[in-house]
Amino acid sequence: MEQRHSASREDVSRLWPRYDEAKLGLRNYWYPVLEARLVKSKQPVSVMLAGEKIVLLRDQGKVYGLSDRCPHRGVPLSLGRREFPGMLTCRYHGWTYDVKTGDLKAALTDGPDSPICGKIGVRVKTYPVEERAKLIWVYIGDGPPPPVEEDIPDELLAPDAVIQPMMDIRKGDWRHAMENAVDPSHGKYLHRNTPFYILHKFVAYQTDLRMVPSEDGIWLRRKSELTFGPSVYPGVGTWPRHGWWRKSPKTKLKEKKGAGAAIAGGARLPAIFFVGHEDWQDLQMFVPVDNERHITWQVSMKRTRGLGKLFWKLRYWSYIRQLHHVVLNRWEDGLMVESMNCPPERLFRPDGAIVAWRRWCQQKARRSPAESTASIVPITADEPVDSIL
Amino acid sequence: MEQRHSASREDVSRLWPRYDEAKLGLRNYWYPVLEARLVKSKQPVSVMLAGEKIVLLRDQGKVYGLSDRCPHRGVPLSLGRREFPGMLTCRYHGWTYDVKTGDLKAALTDGPDSPICGKIGVRVKTYPVEERAKLIWVYIGDGPPPPVEEDIPDELLAPDAVIQPMMDIRKGDWRHAMENAVDPSHGKYLHRNTPFYILHKFVAYQTDLRMVPSEDGIWLRRKSELTFGPSVYPGVGTWPRHGWWRKSPKTKLKEKKGAGAAIAGGARLPAIFFVGHEDWQDLQMFVPVDNERHITWQVSMKRTRGLGKLFWKLRYWSYIRQLHHVVLNRWEDGLMVESMNCPPERLFRPDGAIVAWRRWCQQKARRSPAESTASIVPITADEPVDSIL
Amino acid sequence: MEQRHSASREDVSRLWPRYDEAKLGLRNYWYPVLEARLVKSKQPVSVMLAGEKIVLLRDQGKVYGLSDRCPHRGVPLSLGRREFPGMLTCRYHGWTYDVKTGDLKAALTDGPDSPICGKIGVRVKTYPVEERAKLIWVYIGDGPPPPVEEDIPDELLAPDAVIQPMMDIRKGDWRHAMENAVDPSHGKYLHRNTPFYILHKFVAYQTDLRMVPSEDGIWLRRKSELTFGPSVYPGVGTWPRHGWWRKSPKTKLKEKKGAGAAIAGGARLPAIFFVGHEDWQDLQMFVPVDNERHITWQVSMKRTRGLGKLFWKLRYWSYIRQLHHVVLNRWEDGLMVESMNCPPERLFRPDGAIVAWRRWCQQKARRSPAESTASIVPITADEPVDSIL
Repeated sequence: MEQRHSASREDVSRLWPRYDEAKLGLRNYWYPVLEARLVKSKQPVSVMLAGEKIVLLRDQGKVYGLSDRCPHRGVPLSLGRREFPGMLTCRYHGWTYDVKTGDLKAALTDGPDSPICGKIGVRVKTYPVEERAKLIWVYIGDGPPPPVEEDIPDELLAPDAVIQPMMDIRKGDWRHAMENAVDPSHGKYLHRNTPFYILHKFVAYQTDLRMVPSEDGIWLRRKSELTFGPSVYPGVGTWPRHGWWRKSPKTKLKEKKGAGAAIAGGARLPAIFFVGHEDWQDLQMFVPVDNERHITWQVSMKRTRGLGKLFWKLRYWSYIRQLHHVVLNRWEDGLMVESMNCPPERLFRPDGAIVAWRRWCQQKARRSPAESTASIVPITADEPVDSIL
Repeated sequence: MEQRHSASREDVSRLWPRYDEAKLGLRNYWYPVLEARLVKSKQPVSVMLAGEKIVLLRDQGKVYGLSDRCPHRGVPLSLGRREFPGMLTCRYHGWTYDVKTGDLKAALTDGPDSPICGKIGVRVKTYPVEERAKLIWVYIGDGPPPPVEEDIPDELLAPDAVIQPMMDIRKGDWRHAMENAVDPSHGKYLHRNTPFYILHKFVAYQTDLRMVPSEDGIWLRRKSELTFGPSVYPGVGTWPRHGWWRKSPKTKLKEKKGAGAAIAGGARLPAIFFVGHEDWQDLQMFVPVDNERHITWQVSMKRTRGLGKLFWKLRYWSYIRQLHHVVLNRWEDGLMVESMNCPPERLFRPDGAIVAWRRWCQQKARRSPAESTASIVPITADEPVDSIL
Repeated sequence: MEQRHSASREDVSRLWPRYDEAKLGLRNYWYPVLEARLVKSKQPVSVMLAGEKIVLLRDQGKVYGLSDRCPHRGVPLSLGRREFPGMLTCRYHGWTYDVKTGDLKAALTDGPDSPICGKIGVRVKTYPVEERAKLIWVYIGDGPPPPVEEDIPDELLAPDAVIQPMMDIRKGDWRHAMENAVDPSHGKYLHRNTPFYILHKFVAYQTDLRMVPSEDGIWLRRKSELTFGPSVYPGVGTWPRHGWWRKSPKTKLKEKKGAGAAIAGGARLPAIFFVGHEDWQDLQMFVPVDNERHITWQVSMKRTRGLGKLFWKLRYWSYIRQLHHVVLNRWEDGLMVESMNCPPERLFRPDGAIVAWRRWCQQKARRSPAESTASIVPITADEPVDSIL
């Protein structure tokens, strides 16, 4: 149907209203906001998540999060001081909050009997915060949060996982960034001539891409059996035209056919994308910051111990970070995500993956206790791409 | 009453409507806008006051002010030239205005008989301008201004006052800046550990603060007899915890009890705050610039003559300016005023001083001839703080 | 009539509605947007014209223009690559467009049989583009364009014209920039003391200025027979007061009287101004960029051949560019145009030229096929200035 191909703001809003409304992120999820090592005992840290200013601080080893605004006169609590254990004191008048509950325990400059303590309207909102896999995770949502482990891929929680995180705050909509990760098509053109990939044998195109839910219902995985090499495009010419240093991908690709020569990848809510390399993995996580910006996390990991840890770290710092994460992702993908100006949009066949992802969000994203679940239509496993587009 | 404690925008607006509306300043007052030495004979100077662009220039020693916009095509007159005595000529086409009256006296490029002269709509608005106490004062208001001396503290006009002004254009609402000066409470926490005050014995808190009008009705003065030293805050701990280098303030404070150990201060309209030190004085004056900015004046002065002038100037430049005005006020108070994000606000007992100041503005601020005075409620002298909050 | 003298936004809109609405330029004209040498074969170039983003590229010597937005996901095509002759390929997914027609010829990453090719909604808008007189001209309008030569002054197209263009992207409304060129009055004051003109004999004023259409109806030319030298302005003084190094202009001006001593100039649509110097010419062309900016072109030219070309270029680079185009125009006029803040405005006698120009635009500017021409009032040739103002 034609309206599925050319999507205006109205189309997107009609087909995937929950996704369309989520400019500041899907609610009721845990999001990684900072490397844990950056939150120290002495100085509180201010972060922005889903449009909300949050102050993070560490007390007796554990990290806490509060709304970064003193109710008295609106001064940021992140300017405040750690005067007492378990407390955060506003820099301006010494209003002192319990970091666990957000309760106002003292107003120093009004004495121990200050009538303000215990009154309504002086409690500061607290945020559920956890520290896992070297990262600080904050829960944005209504009602009690699920265990943080529900929102962290198992791979990241394995005791022998050696984790290397890189965080960028970037311009652009978090949905464009996640769709760019889900998109199986752009890499074949955008990244083809990246220096790193000079010896890499990219396929030219695939026509049977589809998104398949995993058995446990957590991941939405790309699948494809058919890959094609250089071809003649009528009226245009042959593409790709490889240099002498690249062997013909045609023969090579055949060998890989069963596995699907495209980079294997899977998506999960709220905005996590998994890329498996030969013996290590990359997790991309996209976090809404405000109306203009999002965080792109690139977390590399490998399960190893002992001397293997050292070798893996050497490998990461010698080329993986610079080539995969800086050149290819920050420079190339980052420029596209920042430049994207849609809707309106005009999707094509490979965007079936993106359409499947949007429907996944529409149907499976967690709901607040208050939200109705009446209109949820179940997604059919292994739905072929051409019925989506 | 609860609504007096927690003030939304609506509450502030209901209780003190004139104050709430005065984002660009209280009208019908003289404001200091520039050091007089900066207005020279040759080059006009552009300033912004209460959202109005004004060009200042000096002619035969006296300073004049006109609206900084040529009615012809809207080019700023501050780009213009002094072609003739008593005149300011627009840079673009030579429209020449009488600096005293704002009348268009000639349009040079249209000849001596130009029909434009004397027509309606070509007069430029003039502003009353006076030079006193090393500063340029401009009147913003409707109708004839009172003598400028009515809006300048007597201390500044004393013939033997040696005056040292410092002007900052800062981000933030002028009302937040003035309220920060009026506020008797924040200094006990915000400024306690300022390097300058390392030997200073701050009180911990006061509970009997009140604002008392002076006999002549010009000043609203802070008063307090009860001051307290370090105390135990239940569930929190002892505060303040002095270092070894400070003697216990408890004994010391008792001696000072009668005088009130807090810094003596008084406020007057439109936004002037007076701080008396042992043998010298500080005046803080806050001037609305536009919707984003205000001027903070810090004027130090001492009445002295002869060699005393030299000693005083040495003292000012050796530490007073840097410690009082830069570190303590520009850095510490300035950061708070810039960061304040209210209403909504949640006042506490010491904010009785701020509430009293807002009522003072509401009731005593000068009115334009057109404004009704029917609804003015007299302020009661020495009203106790706890009846205000 | 009084309303002609003092024009509010409403007055301008009522008298010259087409001109008033043309904030982004008069449509249905060719505009110069770039020096031709800056568009090379390899890298596309992005320009902004009349609020529209356009990508320019050179293919087999000829320059083409397309809307700078891929319909797929809105990424700028100017980030794209020249993969095939006659084609521009989007950097993101390899969508490949015919530069002549804007048709999508291939979507590389979806294979030669991609169903997207040929579907509706994937064509990119093309712009008529021509290269003349060292410049790239782009047509902004509806319907088929006239020959580009219709919008280029003949002087620029002469085969022996040696052309030196300078392009500035400046803040300010293109209409203010063009009116500044048309305005016969400001130069007598604004430019009088420009270093370059220190030996120049400016007239003081003219009272008989009028705008006269050329016989072919293309140009609107300034005419004046009466020029005046220094005069006494009542209540103000004598002006101009020349320095010792300038001979009295009174005598000199008499000699020039017949020719009109003011710089001869003429205006034509859409926003071109011609200045004739003794043996060379200057063309100023003003091009709408967006709501904030315009391009000011200053094109110097002289008809000459052989060694004359060399001498002319030496002359241009030794003083004409720096003094005429940088000091006088970029610095002096540019500051005025950027500072102009109108309407409201209050016109005076010499602004008759500007009024005539606005009426010229209102009546003679090209109309889109759809626009009604019912309300066009013919302009009277040689209408005296004083009946306009």
